[in-house]
Amino acid sequence: MSTAARPAPLALSMGDPAGVGPELAVAAWQMAVSGHLPPFVVVGSHAVIAAAARGRQVPVVAVASPDAALAAFPAALPVIDIGTGAYTPGTPDDAGAALALASLTLATELTRHGATSALVTGPVAKSRLARVGFAFPGQTECVAAACGIAADDAVMMLAGPSLRVVPITVHVALAEVPGLLTTRLITARATIAAAALARDFGIARPRLAVAGLNPHAGEEGRMGHEDQAVIAPAVAQLRAAGIDAVGPLPADTMFHAAARATYDLAICMYHDQALIPIKALDFDEGVNVTLGLPIIRTSPDHGTAFGIAGTGTARPGATLAAIRMAAQCVAHRNA
Amino acid sequence: MSTAARPAPLALSMGDPAGVGPELAVAAWQMAVSGHLPPFVVVGSHAVIAAAARGRQVPVVAVASPDAALAAFPAALPVIDIGTGAYTPGTPDDAGAALALASLTLATELTRHGATSALVTGPVAKSRLARVGFAFPGQTECVAAACGIAADDAVMMLAGPSLRVVPITVHVALAEVPGLLTTRLITARATIAAAALARDFGIARPRLAVAGLNPHAGEEGRMGHEDQAVIAPAVAQLRAAGIDAVGPLPADTMFHAAARATYDLAICMYHDQALIPIKALDFDEGVNVTLGLPIIRTSPDHGTAFGIAGTGTARPGATLAAIRMAAQCVAHRNA
Repeated sequence: MSTAARPAPLALSMGDPAGVGPELAVAAWQMAVSGHLPPFVVVGSHAVIAAAARGRQVPVVAVASPDAALAAFPAALPVIDIGTGAYTPGTPDDAGAALALASLTLATELTRHGATSALVTGPVAKSRLARVGFAFPGQTECVAAACGIAADDAVMMLAGPSLRVVPITVHVALAEVPGLLTTRLITARATIAAAALARDFGIARPRLAVAGLNPHAGEEGRMGHEDQAVIAPAVAQLRAAGIDAVGPLPADTMFHAAARATYDLAICMYHDQALIPIKALDFDEGVNVTLGLPIIRTSPDHGTAFGIAGTGTARPGATLAAIRMAAQCVAHRNA
Repeated sequence: MSTAARPAPLALSMGDPAGVGPELAVAAWQMAVSGHLPPFVVVGSHAVIAAAARGRQVPVVAVASPDAALAAFPAALPVIDIGTGAYTPGTPDDAGAALALASLTLATELTRHGATSALVTGPVAKSRLARVGFAFPGQTECVAAACGIAADDAVMMLAGPSLRVVPITVHVALAEVPGLLTTRLITARATIAAAALARDFGIARPRLAVAGLNPHAGEEGRMGHEDQAVIAPAVAQLRAAGIDAVGPLPADTMFHAAARATYDLAICMYHDQALIPIKALDFDEGVNVTLGLPIIRTSPDHGTAFGIAGTGTARPGATLAAIRMAAQCVAHRNA
């Protein structure tokens, strides 16, 4: 799946045409041509991207292939044009959701076959996608399925300048979290994450800090049994497999600067345990990375922001970070 | 209970004599006499404080009253001496726990009667205190009982330079949290907190941000029912009572800088939801404030740190912040 032999651009799926994805792709090109980002090609609608570029002095060109995109990139933002129809920023509709899905599908396929070097996905509205036949909880599971990877083996990591986190459980009610945590699940996800940090992030022997579930990691069982019964055995198994893991650690003291310096990745038990600290510290630069796939996939860690789409106020930091991180992963994997 | 009529020093309980409390009191005096902190008196052991001061060129003097402490303060660190026995930093014992309890009790009484203007409690070991007859979960409940306040009406707030948080539930297993949350509990604690911010923090109309329990505040019930069934009605009741409260908000996007600028206090549903962000942002300066008491009580938000006691490496930031915040609360309450 790797594209070490020849240069290839990154693939950006456009996201929902009524969201901020198109304007963020335009903003990223402006940064890229000034030398701060690697070349990429947008998979989506030329008309939508051109509309988003209006007033920004960004030329947009339709191209037939990633190779053509690479040639065109210095002079114009290249788009593999699969778009039909007109869309209005801030006003999502089913046709736009279908276009977003087509963009995701083609960008994934191009990357799977090595025509593009990595996949950077733009923001979509899951509830909209569901109306046009999308059968996955989110883009991650869709990309995993296209790659022939079980959803359980595709591990979401959020990464910013200050912190990397993997939540073991994600979009479930907090009351369900204790029952969903198993030693097997924690061990499996942490193992995938450790291997990915070595392969794609240049961290030969990643240090994993595993959070406890309960306050103070349960204080030896005084507050909840899961830290001792479920999480500690997972840490022991990881260590027995040669992975540098410590824990369960009290979650509240894991995320200050001195603590963060002691590990490369925090393994967290639930959504907010992972996302509160990274969004507190790295709000505008959080990147969602899917670990465990044969391809490299990143995404800005924000949604479609329909409410501000088209106003020019969407901040491109997370998109720039997602593109930059994807390129760094490509370099590490091919090194 | 107020001491508006005459100046009075703050009371510092010494904490466990084998912990870092004594040396932090010494460090605080060094800051205070250079003009950065208000005068205070340590309630504890002259011998312990003098030992902690050795090598730091801090004179220590036993005094008979808070008034005498005020007179002595510019030249020496004043101690109301109730100590007997010898203690070794890093080696806690029952006699030391008993001394810590006596220190807390007297410092509370002095403050209740206005002889000292506020109570700043040093770190104790709860498991040690339990061995010498202490029947409370922590110092907060003990102080509340001494003040004739029900433990449920004494509200813990953590406050730092970046953030203030109140956890609605605290030292319970995460699995118990959803069952413990009630509209009545959230409303009652938030009401106490709002009143205290107005009285003691100079915030006439405090803005409260109420966190949801589930990821994304439940996404309209798709992940857990508590956000809609329990938390939203509490926010409605608070607003009906004239309190500026919003929520339930997705917890992960509440704690970045732009979000924090929109509120004065985050009401959180559980321990780590509150403590992860404040410790990530304000680790060395977190102050534990008890709201809803007739007296003002603050505490550095850390433990006895037996492992480093006596080595001179304990950082005094949180103790300095606790003293400074107590003095500011006194000024606001008496304004």
